[in-house]
Amino acid sequence: MTDVPREAFLLPGPVKMHPRVIEAMAVPAMNHRGPEFKEVLAEVRTLTQYAFATHGPVAVLSGSGTAGLEAAVSGLLRKGDRVLNLVNGKFSERFHELCQVFSTSTALTFDWGTAVDPASVAAAMDSQDYRAVTLCWNETSTGLTNPIAEVAKIVKDHDALFLVDGITAVGGIENRMEAWGLDALIVGSQKCLAAPAGLSAVALSKRAYELLHPETSFYVNLKAHIDALAKEDTPFTPAVPLFLAFREALRLLKEEGLEHRIARTRTLAEAARAGVAALGLELFPDRRFASNTVTAIRYPPGIDDSKFRKILRADHRTIVAGGQAQLKGKIFRIGHMGICSIEDLQEGFRAIETTLAAMGHRVKAGAAVEAMAGRA
Amino acid sequence: MTDVPREAFLLPGPVKMHPRVIEAMAVPAMNHRGPEFKEVLAEVRTLTQYAFATHGPVAVLSGSGTAGLEAAVSGLLRKGDRVLNLVNGKFSERFHELCQVFSTSTALTFDWGTAVDPASVAAAMDSQDYRAVTLCWNETSTGLTNPIAEVAKIVKDHDALFLVDGITAVGGIENRMEAWGLDALIVGSQKCLAAPAGLSAVALSKRAYELLHPETSFYVNLKAHIDALAKEDTPFTPAVPLFLAFREALRLLKEEGLEHRIARTRTLAEAARAGVAALGLELFPDRRFASNTVTAIRYPPGIDDSKFRKILRADHRTIVAGGQAQLKGKIFRIGHMGICSIEDLQEGFRAIETTLAAMGHRVKAGAAVEAMAGRA
Repeated sequence: MTDVPREAFLLPGPVKMHPRVIEAMAVPAMNHRGPEFKEVLAEVRTLTQYAFATHGPVAVLSGSGTAGLEAAVSGLLRKGDRVLNLVNGKFSERFHELCQVFSTSTALTFDWGTAVDPASVAAAMDSQDYRAVTLCWNETSTGLTNPIAEVAKIVKDHDALFLVDGITAVGGIENRMEAWGLDALIVGSQKCLAAPAGLSAVALSKRAYELLHPETSFYVNLKAHIDALAKEDTPFTPAVPLFLAFREALRLLKEEGLEHRIARTRTLAEAARAGVAALGLELFPDRRFASNTVTAIRYPPGIDDSKFRKILRADHRTIVAGGQAQLKGKIFRIGHMGICSIEDLQEGFRAIETTLAAMGHRVKAGAAVEAMAGRA
Repeated sequence: MTDVPREAFLLPGPVKMHPRVIEAMAVPAMNHRGPEFKEVLAEVRTLTQYAFATHGPVAVLSGSGTAGLEAAVSGLLRKGDRVLNLVNGKFSERFHELCQVFSTSTALTFDWGTAVDPASVAAAMDSQDYRAVTLCWNETSTGLTNPIAEVAKIVKDHDALFLVDGITAVGGIENRMEAWGLDALIVGSQKCLAAPAGLSAVALSKRAYELLHPETSFYVNLKAHIDALAKEDTPFTPAVPLFLAFREALRLLKEEGLEHRIARTRTLAEAARAGVAALGLELFPDRRFASNTVTAIRYPPGIDDSKFRKILRADHRTIVAGGQAQLKGKIFRIGHMGICSIEDLQEGFRAIETTLAAMGHRVKAGAAVEAMAGRA
């Protein structure tokens, strides 16, 4: 393993990987049509169902989250299908953009940082028939978790398909996909599952599986991928090293236990929010919907985004994310999912505190870490 | 690096990887929107142009060869476009199947093991207008290289677009894409470039780049990928570890020199064909078009495919490929591309000879390796 200096790596994905995951990739070429790889695929399938908390059909695609979304959208929807996209951030916008390619879709928008309002969804669905609704469960761009259970109930009551971007939610936020009746749920490998970037997984309800049609994108044909995985195979050449790393990351999830991982992620989020308050800073999103996997924080007056992140990185080897699109320069974002520990998070907050102080933001030394200590 | 017993790994892809390539993947998570990864992408772009011997636009996709083909087909063609698919094996059949999704395509078929006949292509193009023609340059399923320069001339004379599957050709077979006027050329990472499976690269002519339209597949939108790479970026999350390995594999190609790699691949192929003859076996394809990257060999009477490959693997740790589709049980295939050495190939042939002898095929001991020795 190449020696790379340790960094406090607090992006909302990719996230820190366990050495076992990193080492799992470093193996000679493996025949993806041979017996060993069949064993890998069998284990990946079972562990993917575990991560999704489902008994239904799953696929693992050699392509990142967007590939997973396209697989679900192009496999379930057709041109002419009316689709309602719930939009309140950059990733729900992308979901809408994707749906426009494969269906006739309408965006129901909410201000960035506010949650999707179930009553508005109900009103929209009462006034117009929709074949499907899409939701970005956890909006990584604003650090907000949408009220999925409430929205799911409305969608179910209106008998529409419910397609959910769970890219930064699955494995980090409580998930009852079967009870809620989600029809398609998509996750990315490099988020709460703490594997390298480059894979995505899709879980379907049984009725959604039955509805898959063949006029879909070719490489991400979801039925082909699900049916192949059921036989420990892939329709096209898989990204072998990424599957090996993904399996190892899922084994780590299973060893920790899904419920435990989710509870620990919540504790980390509470610690992060306590740290934010102790620094005299404000969350960006409506705090009732603040995400447990990503914390988005408003810059205090006078703190320049690019200068802040440059100092943080150069002097403290700490990497956080800036804002995207309309939030560029206004917020910064911290990921605390996957195998992130309270020590990682405290190290990050210590660096943030020092950097803000050096840039003129008045803060009591040690306040953030102290506030977090009681939380974990 | 995990300790895995050494195998003579003679598949027509994935192929043996250099330890530098394997180790390049084993690094902690890297921010794919940060400055280091921009450097990776800049180098990958330049080295990809080198591998394609082009000065034109290139893209590297986080998806295997089929994703690269779909990017070119869905970006350049539209429903209603008349396309002529030249089909003489499993992979040209898949290319045809893909084109049927995105255009109105017709297959011009040739027997498996025979080359695409330029005169037939000319006749087909004289009798009907086609917007595009597709060719699988090196048919991995039959071990045959199609006469690309001759076909390119005909396509050019008829002013059609020429889309070429170069998945097992680029980096192993002499390539004059700019002189021949290829409009799209696709390669897979795990073949002649000897990187792990999971990436594909696409090179376009300048006129093809100008013709890219937006009603394409979403994740493999070729214009988005090309334009992003030109700015050291990617439109969606890239498979970071695979890009690091791909860069290292391309560096190795550059260090060896493209012309040298191609000449060495030819020498290996000549050695393989000499070995086949010395074993009293026959090539499957028309030998005038025998591929320099993959050798396909007919089984002699009485040799059972699955038993042969099982013994070869269990007793000699040597892995070769069987036949696909209609050729299942009739042929076996050996890859000799990328960083494969004459020693790897001789070790493989020694194992093949011993296995065939044990199964009752009469052969002079040491004949294959002896015949190959004079060739390299």
